[in-house]
Amino acid sequence: MNQDYIIPNVWSIIEEGFDKEKVKSSESLFSIGNGAMGQRANFEEQYTGHTFQGSYIAGVYYPDKTRVGWWKNGYPEYFAKVINAPNWIGIDVMVNGVAFDLNTCKKVANYKRELNMQEGWYKRSFVATLPNDQEIEVNVTRFLSLDIDEVGAIKYDVKALGGDMDLTFSPYLDSGITNEDTNWDDKFWNTTKVSSQGQQGFIEAHTMKTNFATCTFMESKLFHNGKAVAINSDAKTEEHEVRFTYKISLKNGDSATLHKFGGYTVSRNHEASDLVNAAKLVLKKVTNLGYETLMDKQKQAWGKIWEMSDITIEGDIKAQQGIRFNIFQLNQTYLGKDSRLNIGPKGFTGEKYGGSTYWDTEAYCIPFYMATKDQRVARSLLKYRYNHLEKAIENAKKLGFSNGAALYPMVTMNGEECHNEWEITFEEIHRNGAIAFAIYNYLRFTGDYSYIPEMGLEVLIGISRFWQQRATFSKQKDKFVILGVTGPNEYENNVNNNWYTNYLAKWCINYTLEQIGKVKDGYSDDHKRIIGMTKLTDTEMDSWKAVADNMYFPFSEELDIYLQQDGFLDKELITVANLDRTQRPINQKWSWDRILRSPYIKQADTLQGFYLFEDHFSQEQLEKHFDFYEPFTVHESSLSPCVHSIQAAKLNRMEQAYTFYLRTSRLDLDDYNKEVEEGLHITSMAGTWMSIVEGFGGMRVVDDKLSFTPRIPKQWKAYSFKVNFRNRILKVRVTEEGGSFDLEGTDEMSIRVNGKRLVLKAGETISASSE
Amino acid sequence: MNQDYIIPNVWSIIEEGFDKEKVKSSESLFSIGNGAMGQRANFEEQYTGHTFQGSYIAGVYYPDKTRVGWWKNGYPEYFAKVINAPNWIGIDVMVNGVAFDLNTCKKVANYKRELNMQEGWYKRSFVATLPNDQEIEVNVTRFLSLDIDEVGAIKYDVKALGGDMDLTFSPYLDSGITNEDTNWDDKFWNTTKVSSQGQQGFIEAHTMKTNFATCTFMESKLFHNGKAVAINSDAKTEEHEVRFTYKISLKNGDSATLHKFGGYTVSRNHEASDLVNAAKLVLKKVTNLGYETLMDKQKQAWGKIWEMSDITIEGDIKAQQGIRFNIFQLNQTYLGKDSRLNIGPKGFTGEKYGGSTYWDTEAYCIPFYMATKDQRVARSLLKYRYNHLEKAIENAKKLGFSNGAALYPMVTMNGEECHNEWEITFEEIHRNGAIAFAIYNYLRFTGDYSYIPEMGLEVLIGISRFWQQRATFSKQKDKFVILGVTGPNEYENNVNNNWYTNYLAKWCINYTLEQIGKVKDGYSDDHKRIIGMTKLTDTEMDSWKAVADNMYFPFSEELDIYLQQDGFLDKELITVANLDRTQRPINQKWSWDRILRSPYIKQADTLQGFYLFEDHFSQEQLEKHFDFYEPFTVHESSLSPCVHSIQAAKLNRMEQAYTFYLRTSRLDLDDYNKEVEEGLHITSMAGTWMSIVEGFGGMRVVDDKLSFTPRIPKQWKAYSFKVNFRNRILKVRVTEEGGSFDLEGTDEMSIRVNGKRLVLKAGETISASSE
Repeated sequence: MNQDYIIPNVWSIIEEGFDKEKVKSSESLFSIGNGAMGQRANFEEQYTGHTFQGSYIAGVYYPDKTRVGWWKNGYPEYFAKVINAPNWIGIDVMVNGVAFDLNTCKKVANYKRELNMQEGWYKRSFVATLPNDQEIEVNVTRFLSLDIDEVGAIKYDVKALGGDMDLTFSPYLDSGITNEDTNWDDKFWNTTKVSSQGQQGFIEAHTMKTNFATCTFMESKLFHNGKAVAINSDAKTEEHEVRFTYKISLKNGDSATLHKFGGYTVSRNHEASDLVNAAKLVLKKVTNLGYETLMDKQKQAWGKIWEMSDITIEGDIKAQQGIRFNIFQLNQTYLGKDSRLNIGPKGFTGEKYGGSTYWDTEAYCIPFYMATKDQRVARSLLKYRYNHLEKAIENAKKLGFSNGAALYPMVTMNGEECHNEWEITFEEIHRNGAIAFAIYNYLRFTGDYSYIPEMGLEVLIGISRFWQQRATFSKQKDKFVILGVTGPNEYENNVNNNWYTNYLAKWCINYTLEQIGKVKDGYSDDHKRIIGMTKLTDTEMDSWKAVADNMYFPFSEELDIYLQQDGFLDKELITVANLDRTQRPINQKWSWDRILRSPYIKQADTLQGFYLFEDHFSQEQLEKHFDFYEPFTVHESSLSPCVHSIQAAKLNRMEQAYTFYLRTSRLDLDDYNKEVEEGLHITSMAGTWMSIVEGFGGMRVVDDKLSFTPRIPKQWKAYSFKVNFRNRILKVRVTEEGGSFDLEGTDEMSIRVNGKRLVLKAGETISASSE
Repeated sequence: MNQDYIIPNVWSIIEEGFDKEKVKSSESLFSIGNGAMGQRANFEEQYTGHTFQGSYIAGVYYPDKTRVGWWKNGYPEYFAKVINAPNWIGIDVMVNGVAFDLNTCKKVANYKRELNMQEGWYKRSFVATLPNDQEIEVNVTRFLSLDIDEVGAIKYDVKALGGDMDLTFSPYLDSGITNEDTNWDDKFWNTTKVSSQGQQGFIEAHTMKTNFATCTFMESKLFHNGKAVAINSDAKTEEHEVRFTYKISLKNGDSATLHKFGGYTVSRNHEASDLVNAAKLVLKKVTNLGYETLMDKQKQAWGKIWEMSDITIEGDIKAQQGIRFNIFQLNQTYLGKDSRLNIGPKGFTGEKYGGSTYWDTEAYCIPFYMATKDQRVARSLLKYRYNHLEKAIENAKKLGFSNGAALYPMVTMNGEECHNEWEITFEEIHRNGAIAFAIYNYLRFTGDYSYIPEMGLEVLIGISRFWQQRATFSKQKDKFVILGVTGPNEYENNVNNNWYTNYLAKWCINYTLEQIGKVKDGYSDDHKRIIGMTKLTDTEMDSWKAVADNMYFPFSEELDIYLQQDGFLDKELITVANLDRTQRPINQKWSWDRILRSPYIKQADTLQGFYLFEDHFSQEQLEKHFDFYEPFTVHESSLSPCVHSIQAAKLNRMEQAYTFYLRTSRLDLDDYNKEVEEGLHITSMAGTWMSIVEGFGGMRVVDDKLSFTPRIPKQWKAYSFKVNFRNRILKVRVTEEGGSFDLEGTDEMSIRVNGKRLVLKAGETISASSE
């Protein structure tokens, strides 16, 4: 049974009733972020129950020394970890000298959490009875500002119930924090200075080894029944802490409200020596604005994001809540302002997996950012890999490749590989192909060819060199083979001729050769520069072509399908439907050898290829492959259901598409994988977006034109979304009767619907029937 | 270049000249052991240079918490480690108040180490000039008694040169020791009591978690110019140490000699509460005997071992030294007295690899112990696995097997798996076959059928159940396949249909069925008991037979050879001879993926099968397979050269056989693998024995008869060895002219030489020409 305590609501994530067992799960689900920092939904006040504390700063990581059982040559020395940053949210509350702690309260009534996605804030409210029988009503609202992204704001409101009381607020900063995820229990932070000025507190601390300097800061304002109260507390500073203490006496029914502003200035954006000054400037700005004005700006900023990226679903609240939760989290994690950042698999909601960048970015996230943001955001994501090209070449060198062959890392923070499992790190090389595909995808969607001569071609050349060197010639097969790989389906390791990998390799080489020709023809200066730098010769290109032209693909004549890898048909082909339910999820029930020799597929593998290259295959081929592989797929990767939803929709199997859609969109809300406590699956959320726009909406780019084949699940009355195609904004609405296409702005665009080309002028709406 | 500082000598290992860089290497090479305890050749006196301290007690281990990068279901919680035990050898020496330390001496002259293998002692001698310019001549002899295997003895002799001097001996015990090999820097020992009585010292300590209780003990005697001196020092005890201090004034030319007796009593052999008393009894015994008498007994005991197990080689000192070193180390490690012990890969010479038992025992060591000891020793080794059958069944259960299927652990101390690398722990399942083969091998060599009904059959049934369940049916091949395994060649992981594994599996099942039939016919009570206990049915046996009868074996029609695994011929088949020498050893130069997709073979794999089942294949088949596989073999396992030496001899390629022989016999002496500092390769030493007796000697058992096909390398004048075949002792001597067979004892036996059967009566010698 999946988790089922989140209350369905079209714009909010809501929990009602206090349950200590759900605290860690809710800390993940109610996380907030603004692209520059993030915060799990930890309580401001002391909490002595089970909790997973997490405050994160984008781009701040620690290289944790690699831990392995058995070292292999080529393993990286460290694993780059997103780390828990100094705590800025803390506000201890005392009532008549007794600490308020939800874990020790005699009673907690009307407990409610709400994450308002429309406006970008998170609120907790409840009535608590303390061990000393004092009763208080608490309302706490928190948000991380999109406008001033170095700051967050908390409004902590306490109302005295059933009697007078003395109340104390103790806002504090704390850098004596630990990490949930650490290999050797290293200390990750070094605190250099704890200071205060007036009612402002500062902690300067830097990460060990990486030396990211940060200043964590805060300032508070106090209100009595809504009226500002002058405060003047002396700061109490300790080795890792600065704390103020504000006392106020309340009559029964009175309220005391603390506004706390806090956050981080970091050396990524400021001189390390100037962080305290920068923090003071931020505090000046936000205290001048005040909490309410900052909140108003927050609502406007989120309004702007939703204006472009919202997807509406009518007639299905859970589906609506799911897609908005996914879109909201993606925007909390990455806004595309900084090309040094990327999209970590857990965003700012947990620490698992470390690193910030996986192939998820290229294979799953780029379409979302391309279609819902300015196209510079996607370009920025591509540029991130261009900036890491040198390191990818170094990485390949460590594994025995030469001559500028590039292997992008499986997991990275700064371009260096930081993953250490040979079957993944060394063998899951298809990631290289996803990076090339993203370049192609960006080009066809944005039409921005300039990226190729400026940056993309160099990346493509490095990748093609890798493929040519990685393929070996099999005399027996008289073909090139790629031995010893792990495909997207990580439930197979060290297999030969993974079809997906071989197909990508061939495609990469051909695409690179095509682009070299185009750049030569259209951008001869760039061509000269790139050829000069890479020393690429015709002979070398011929050697690439030989590999691409003679690549081997495992195929079954009998079944008329491509095989996931050599030998796949030797397995005991028992479908998931015929697998004892008690054996699932197999990754929690079976030993690894058993998983490997089984036919079970963790996530789309051959079908991932059919997704990326759908125009290379007929509908009949897709159907045959889907019918063969899907029954063996256990979808134990968060990245699996979305691809299957898209393909089921394409095959007009709407019930199946809908089931997969719910699974991808509510993966975390309903905790399908029993691990939401560890954080959310951020990157797969972009797959959810694809499953509506590309799946149900049937959006494709064909011959430089946008094309749609809209379908609608029977559970829905209508759904709508917008896409930014080549800087033109198109709004699509699909109902049971058909689809309508509405061009915003001043331009005109040509789209295809169900194979028919339609020209749409600004302001026009054209309807097309849904199959 | 290999190491080359050991001076060739037929009976001793000798080092001359003090070289700090060689201390750790020599600490391994000059290790001593007596089956119950072992000691690296660490110095008795203080040494501040680089050293790897190691004192080991058989069967005493610590379950070190498993360390992995990424946990997999089924991994064991801990890795059982041989651990460094409290130090009993320490004797600090002071000259006129200055500590004697070879690392700080102004000069060290005439430095010599000798390990006398014939007599079982180790000696160091030299003249040292201390920082205070005092000169002393030192002679230190040490041995671990074979007669009283809880004790060792040291004779530490110092002669004053060039002046009078005050000398201090400080014999001590120390339990404040650390381990070279530890996952988490845990403390492995807990010291409970440090005590003394008269000139005896005791430290009681037990291992953490496993709670093996030990008493480390000592007592010393002092001599001045050979005459006993009464001593009466007060013991100085600290938390982890007990120490006596003896002062003596020497005139120039005088000598002072300390006899130190020390060792361990352990709870494996005594009540934990009685360890100090037991130690006192040992000390009483040995001080009554005195050092010289104990030494005489030592020489006699080793003489007895050599009488049966010696191999002589005439005309090739290095080859002679090599084989004796191997035989000596095997006997130091395991003497077969205790069926709870086994043969660790490093014996008592280091800590690497942990555990005590690998498949090495069955595949490599059993032939040696079978042929050179009472046959009860080999039976004891078999019984070790019988005792662990329940745990092997539990182990298989953890991996999803049922109904009494048994998978013996890859590495173990107590029957539980303690290795954690999925490709080995879960997939290197051929180890199960080696255990069944050892039963068969024991039977054919000793003729002791009683083992089968008493114990062996239950083990065989557990193993056959495993194979039947582990094989799966491939519809495509219409055969049973075994997917996802690692063969003996660990440079391939997770391959399908490893020929060696499939062949063993089929053989195991057939052999088990055959033995079930024999037990049924000949031992009906045992049969009833075993069938009752195992609930084995005819239906189940039919299912085994189906697997054995329809097992798939990868085969190349074109090359007419069995393939190491599916897809082997898809590799780039560049031989080792054509591989750039700078790339070797590949396990130190290449990343794991590159090793895996290469054709290079770490150790005999297909050829290992041809070795075990040589009578199943013709000479032509062996030649074809040897010619195909050997050129791809890099022999980066210590277990590889011996098998190739045997097969090269069988193919009459004597130069190649000789080269492989030197490599296996002098692997550690010449440090082929650049790792002798970590300890010796004990189990592969049994392979060295095989390469003479089975390789050059051509010994086989055919139809219950012993058979020989003797050959001699041109470097040798003659060689000789003895074997105990079915309790009859046969001496074989091979010269350039031929071989002679000499039956010791009162019986007669029939042997075959070059296919001709000869009947030999006691006292007779028959000659046979060497091909």
